[in-house]
Amino acid sequence: MVTYKEAGVDLQVADEVVERIAGQVRRTWTPRVLNTGRGGFAGLFQLDYPRGILRREYRSPVLVAAANGVGTKIDIASRMGVLDSIGVDLVALCVNDLIVRGAEPLFFLDTISLGKKDPDQIELILKGIGSGCRESGCAILGGEAAELPGLYPAGRFDLSGFAVGVVEKSRLILGDRVAEGDEVLGLASSGLHSNGYSLVRKAFFGGSRRLRLNDRPLGLRRTLGEELLEPTRIYVRPVLSILQTYRRKQVVHAIAHIAGGGLPRNLPRVIPPHLDIVLEKKDWPVPPVFRLVQEAGVVPDEEMFNVFNMGIGMALVVSPHFTDSILKQLADLKYPAWRIGRIVKGKNRVILR
Amino acid sequence: MVTYKEAGVDLQVADEVVERIAGQVRRTWTPRVLNTGRGGFAGLFQLDYPRGILRREYRSPVLVAAANGVGTKIDIASRMGVLDSIGVDLVALCVNDLIVRGAEPLFFLDTISLGKKDPDQIELILKGIGSGCRESGCAILGGEAAELPGLYPAGRFDLSGFAVGVVEKSRLILGDRVAEGDEVLGLASSGLHSNGYSLVRKAFFGGSRRLRLNDRPLGLRRTLGEELLEPTRIYVRPVLSILQTYRRKQVVHAIAHIAGGGLPRNLPRVIPPHLDIVLEKKDWPVPPVFRLVQEAGVVPDEEMFNVFNMGIGMALVVSPHFTDSILKQLADLKYPAWRIGRIVKGKNRVILR
Repeated sequence: MVTYKEAGVDLQVADEVVERIAGQVRRTWTPRVLNTGRGGFAGLFQLDYPRGILRREYRSPVLVAAANGVGTKIDIASRMGVLDSIGVDLVALCVNDLIVRGAEPLFFLDTISLGKKDPDQIELILKGIGSGCRESGCAILGGEAAELPGLYPAGRFDLSGFAVGVVEKSRLILGDRVAEGDEVLGLASSGLHSNGYSLVRKAFFGGSRRLRLNDRPLGLRRTLGEELLEPTRIYVRPVLSILQTYRRKQVVHAIAHIAGGGLPRNLPRVIPPHLDIVLEKKDWPVPPVFRLVQEAGVVPDEEMFNVFNMGIGMALVVSPHFTDSILKQLADLKYPAWRIGRIVKGKNRVILR
Repeated sequence: MVTYKEAGVDLQVADEVVERIAGQVRRTWTPRVLNTGRGGFAGLFQLDYPRGILRREYRSPVLVAAANGVGTKIDIASRMGVLDSIGVDLVALCVNDLIVRGAEPLFFLDTISLGKKDPDQIELILKGIGSGCRESGCAILGGEAAELPGLYPAGRFDLSGFAVGVVEKSRLILGDRVAEGDEVLGLASSGLHSNGYSLVRKAFFGGSRRLRLNDRPLGLRRTLGEELLEPTRIYVRPVLSILQTYRRKQVVHAIAHIAGGGLPRNLPRVIPPHLDIVLEKKDWPVPPVFRLVQEAGVVPDEEMFNVFNMGIGMALVVSPHFTDSILKQLADLKYPAWRIGRIVKGKNRVILR
């Protein structure tokens, strides 16, 4: 049973909210969601549906869970009044964290904190969450929209998301199989994703030569605001597809979600301490928005790489014998990707060349 | 593997935060948490540990999940600078939502949004979360502390929590077995819990005759601020203990967590539509804090019951033949409880007498 908990002072508005989001929520339901037909306190998810799947597919199931907010990207969305894609970012941040372990996303929950409960606003946010969940194959199992008049001014809000997935223990990706000579594949990001927005805001809107959200700076084919709100790419389909193809051979040795901290901070977390990662900057294209941020904020190269994804949203460390066939599979799935580096002896550093 | 995701601008502060909360997090770990020894992107929980428990105990496991914020109680905590128990409220709201379905809590995740990342503040919040998780037997599997300078002033913050539990499908409590003649047992709340704080703040601090948080109003044995921050009671132990005792007989027909909306809004959700609930107000004591709020805000009786728990934090609808023995078991466990009403023919209303 799926619940979207009533909260807030005006209970009539609360009822309207529940009704309007119900459609968005139901469209994400998989047959494993147990719908008891009435509002409850918690959502129910049948792990063993269809009957027997648990015993057939898993000797030792491991649940994988992640929690995220969308950071200050939410401020751009509020200021532009464009709320229908920030929910995609929220789901993306969570499910992209699950797949780095090899887990298949199962369900998602969220909390929305608002200054004033506005059914239109909540419906738009849920529209994005629903779209992200359908793309990831996970069900919205519950959530809460709470009115916090003292904490948020009217029209402002914050979001948190939680996702749970499952993976067979023997197929968990822990990075322990990464070896010297492995290659690093980078999957293209859609842009800034959801990290570094405090720096972005300072660079574009804090200095003396301020830009506006509806400006069309050189190098962009749309307004700055549209570029900044480009939803975070969801990598569930391509990553699960590759893992399925190499289910037995296990040629994917590590996966890193390139979020806060960029490539230098996220790649070392998934490889053994006695290895380094050498990345060749010339081997992938950095999207124009990063150059724009760098020029507007006069940000040093190193800082750019430490804060932003620089065009790579997800990195796979793979056995070199399978690099070409994995790149071909990604191309067939229409996910741009490149060979961006390799693993060498070292001490858990990222070397950018 | 447990992660507390680094986020925010100052990465040194982020590292300090991760280090300081690691102790609180680890103290909640059960043997089912898979600790891979290094920071990762998502937390891992072994469903089948000890080995075989899943097959022995569950024919068809159902995962149960709930997400919550703590509402404007957080404003009282910020203003008093007392942050070590608001995390208990966060956990309580989530796990109390799980046990109404008969589920055993497994793990918990949280997100903390702050204006400025203050390691002391985050450590205190985590202390409360850790304490609530230990009491509920659930592990902190991950979380995020994010700095959102534009959204929150320095010193202010918001919290979201998310809990997952498991229950065997045949033992799910869905309310369908509730029948005419069943009795309603009320378990004492510890006070206001985490609901109605927008009204509380208006009643005490919004009118002409304002109270202060360090006042000691008549009828309270402590300051108003201390009373308002009393942590939400966690009902996991007594409820799971009763469900375990009557595992085969299944004499507990429905459970309701009395949160936002009070008894009139939460009880009808768990009983069939052709039945009413008659509650005898004289049959349980209403704690002094509710009278204080009512007098300060000149709040009508009906509104009080619609907004607050009025002394009942959790309600059980049980077979009348077992009321006495359940009440005795609750007394032995030191959880005050009373027979507060009964189920009669009707149309899904709560009748307060």
